[in-house]
Amino acid sequence: MESQLVENLAVAVERVRGIVHRTPVVRSSRLDTQVGCSMFFKCENLQHTGSFKYRGASNAVRSLAPSVKAVATHSSGNHGAALAEAASKAGVAAHIVVPRGAVPGKIEAIRSYGGRVVECDATQASRDAGLAAVVEQTGAEVIHPYNDLRIIAGQGTAAVELLEEVPDLDVLIAPIGGGGLVSGCISAAIARGGSLRVIGAEPEGADDTARSLAQGERISQFTPHTIADGLRAHVGEINFSVISRYIDRVVTVSEDDIRRDMRTLWHTLKLVVEPSCATVFSALRKIQDELAGKRVGLILSGGNANLDSIAFCGRCSG
Amino acid sequence: MESQLVENLAVAVERVRGIVHRTPVVRSSRLDTQVGCSMFFKCENLQHTGSFKYRGASNAVRSLAPSVKAVATHSSGNHGAALAEAASKAGVAAHIVVPRGAVPGKIEAIRSYGGRVVECDATQASRDAGLAAVVEQTGAEVIHPYNDLRIIAGQGTAAVELLEEVPDLDVLIAPIGGGGLVSGCISAAIARGGSLRVIGAEPEGADDTARSLAQGERISQFTPHTIADGLRAHVGEINFSVISRYIDRVVTVSEDDIRRDMRTLWHTLKLVVEPSCATVFSALRKIQDELAGKRVGLILSGGNANLDSIAFCGRCSG
Repeated sequence: MESQLVENLAVAVERVRGIVHRTPVVRSSRLDTQVGCSMFFKCENLQHTGSFKYRGASNAVRSLAPSVKAVATHSSGNHGAALAEAASKAGVAAHIVVPRGAVPGKIEAIRSYGGRVVECDATQASRDAGLAAVVEQTGAEVIHPYNDLRIIAGQGTAAVELLEEVPDLDVLIAPIGGGGLVSGCISAAIARGGSLRVIGAEPEGADDTARSLAQGERISQFTPHTIADGLRAHVGEINFSVISRYIDRVVTVSEDDIRRDMRTLWHTLKLVVEPSCATVFSALRKIQDELAGKRVGLILSGGNANLDSIAFCGRCSG
Repeated sequence: MESQLVENLAVAVERVRGIVHRTPVVRSSRLDTQVGCSMFFKCENLQHTGSFKYRGASNAVRSLAPSVKAVATHSSGNHGAALAEAASKAGVAAHIVVPRGAVPGKIEAIRSYGGRVVECDATQASRDAGLAAVVEQTGAEVIHPYNDLRIIAGQGTAAVELLEEVPDLDVLIAPIGGGGLVSGCISAAIARGGSLRVIGAEPEGADDTARSLAQGERISQFTPHTIADGLRAHVGEINFSVISRYIDRVVTVSEDDIRRDMRTLWHTLKLVVEPSCATVFSALRKIQDELAGKRVGLILSGGNANLDSIAFCGRCSG
């Protein structure tokens, strides 16, 4: 498996070059002092479509057979928007199956990137049926949000860039939802060689990966409860197989941690990050004694926070 | 005057190298399409202490005579925090005169950067007296927030970096409060040579520069009313003399524009920017027909927005 992950990653790096943003790495000496290690934040919130998902989507779309003229997925979140944009840029149609009741802003984003939105009911059965119908009608190739080697390799390019900029990282922390990003980070760690530890961060309310690792097999039933909407997915089969072999550990964090640290990141880094991003910093804080003096990379996975809850009134100045 | 501005700027570039962050330049193809030109946002919200003010403060502090062991200013805003940090990094004391009633978070920031806060009443007379007393007691050198050639040159280094990254800019837009940043941008435009137009952005409620230009001399009385707290200062004498000779034009923008565009920048660029930053984008939108097809640099001046007004509740996800 190792050599396949490494090879896929190397191909993805070349394939998405010039298509994805090379996002900046930011630092905060103030936060470093607070937590006692040197942190390097990889700003995937500044990626096209506002999340790392554009990397995997681009890698997948750019590796389609020439006969494939359309892609499809079900996602009301960042993968749907990323796939719509990646397909549009590559001249391929994108059909995105979205459950009724999804946040209007997200549906609008998918449309604005040129995706066709196909509504379904909010059950898994309706999603699956909706996607099957789209494939039947259009011949689209399904691009799963994370349980897909092309997606894993694409997401890993974020870690490759970070390691190019900071080659001597000791630890890399990424959030775990479906496990695409962290599997990509693991691929990059294997490719670099040496002893880079990859740590996963999970909300306590969506800790299916941590529980799966504890019981030695992927849990089959799972109902998430977390504000980190990007991390509500059930860890994928391929992903769990990568994670269970190579992850250093998974650290779970509370909803209170996530709320507090999301605010800290906005305030200190001056970046709009979505709740999922806070989990990596919360995880670091939770084990900061163990990481003292280390050089730690943290992937800020996305910036698609809902700003409707924010009052841009006179109080935002001052 | 031209050669002095250019020479000061060249010295400042060398002096602050490695001390200030080389901040990233971000783009948004979506916003470019909306406004019809190519925009390059220089992210001074990601500068140390959260604003471009750290550049001028660092340049001023690093050019002190060796006998000077302390600096002082009156500012409850970004200059106070920047001067405290720049002084601290240079091993010099900083005394910051702050009116009673200033935002507690800002006072806390000054202290956290190692500055000594000296309280005074909220009148100009009390500020002046407070500063005079500090100088008397400590021998500190006063570093004015903007009416100072060292400050102007320091702020100009932001424009130099932007021009290094995007040499073929047609237009550069910067906000005008006291005029330090825009004077620095003008210095950089002169240094580059050619025909780079520098445009200033001012809130209608703090349009003293626009009115001063209209009447041909710096207006003497002025009471600002704007949420763009970074732009409430009265344009400085040196600054006005630079601006009146070299500025292309000043565009004024409404409070509604500022509120709307601050939200747009947060949402689209995924950056926490303070209200002052919105003025440059609002100004561009106001004259976008005139700028069609141009390559436009915009300085995002700072990220010290007050997040106390933001509820980080469940609604921020989704």
